[in-house]
Amino acid sequence: MVKPLDDLVGALSRLPTIGKKSAWRLALHLLERPQEELDHLSRCIGSLKATVTLCKRCFNYGTGEVCDICNNPSRDSGLICIVEKPMDVFAFEKSGLYRGLYHVLGGVLSPLSGVTAEKLRIAQLRERLQKESIREIILGLGSSAEAETTSMYIARLFSNNQYKITRLARGVPAGIELEYVDQITLDHALHERTDISYK
Amino acid sequence: MVKPLDDLVGALSRLPTIGKKSAWRLALHLLERPQEELDHLSRCIGSLKATVTLCKRCFNYGTGEVCDICNNPSRDSGLICIVEKPMDVFAFEKSGLYRGLYHVLGGVLSPLSGVTAEKLRIAQLRERLQKESIREIILGLGSSAEAETTSMYIARLFSNNQYKITRLARGVPAGIELEYVDQITLDHALHERTDISYK
Repeated sequence: MVKPLDDLVGALSRLPTIGKKSAWRLALHLLERPQEELDHLSRCIGSLKATVTLCKRCFNYGTGEVCDICNNPSRDSGLICIVEKPMDVFAFEKSGLYRGLYHVLGGVLSPLSGVTAEKLRIAQLRERLQKESIREIILGLGSSAEAETTSMYIARLFSNNQYKITRLARGVPAGIELEYVDQITLDHALHERTDISYK
Repeated sequence: MVKPLDDLVGALSRLPTIGKKSAWRLALHLLERPQEELDHLSRCIGSLKATVTLCKRCFNYGTGEVCDICNNPSRDSGLICIVEKPMDVFAFEKSGLYRGLYHVLGGVLSPLSGVTAEKLRIAQLRERLQKESIREIILGLGSSAEAETTSMYIARLFSNNQYKITRLARGVPAGIELEYVDQITLDHALHERTDISYK
């Protein structure tokens, strides 16, 4: 009926967790805000993809060739935590306890959905393990069946005498995505990780 | 940590009903979408205030001087429905049953929050009643104490012999078990019961 409003409602309701009614509420809220605020939000969205990059070392989001975490000389570069997606890095970083580096796999093995080992960043992990002097690999994947399988797969693939391979303690509740795990559970799980390398 | 992401999360979480976690999820979702989609959303937001106008007759949102509803010659211009805010116009229009015009008050009387009659579009309503040939005023306000007071105030202010002033029927909402209907609603429904006997 009012085209610019309808357009915005349409675009907003295409986002996850935003239904038609929330979209209307957001659109009418935006209409009442000062233009600078709308310009700011508009710029943030428009420039997002151009300014956010994938770190070429750990594949986390960043703003340069290499992300802030990989670039930070105070981080322990002998420790590498393997996570599924960038959101998981943010979850670990929020706790602030982990001082090592990351490797974002880009998913977990799921043959039924066509996610095979070649689709994940396992070749890049192998390359890092050859180039960098890693002391320990922490498998920071979730506890879904696919994530467990992926952990086992990586542990089997990379087990040797050069480094330890550990997994998060089974303090992580079953069947939950890592991004939903509460902070205390995550801290415990990180602290009580167990050795699963094959000897 | 990743500034463009942090900026977007900050801007999104300032919106109503969007918390920090939803904002993160939305931001990471947007990062995965094609640039055209982001550009479209960005444009919709940036141009919103410049393209959406307030109808100078009924104060509903529109795109020109006068909104589509006021401009529509097939609408019954003798009927005027008084609502609190533009969202309420959309609620009525969705049903498609109402064929009259609207008048958006811009709020309800709430002396404690400083909303007095002068802050609402009551002077503009008086002007319309003088210029237009109105047959009936429908008070389409909510049922909060403030809305009820506002309805009474307007009914008292504009009552004369030229037009009828009506209010929305009060009663049992659709699709609800009678045991869950609150006492005030039930009292209204009983008091304002309608005759359905066959003649």
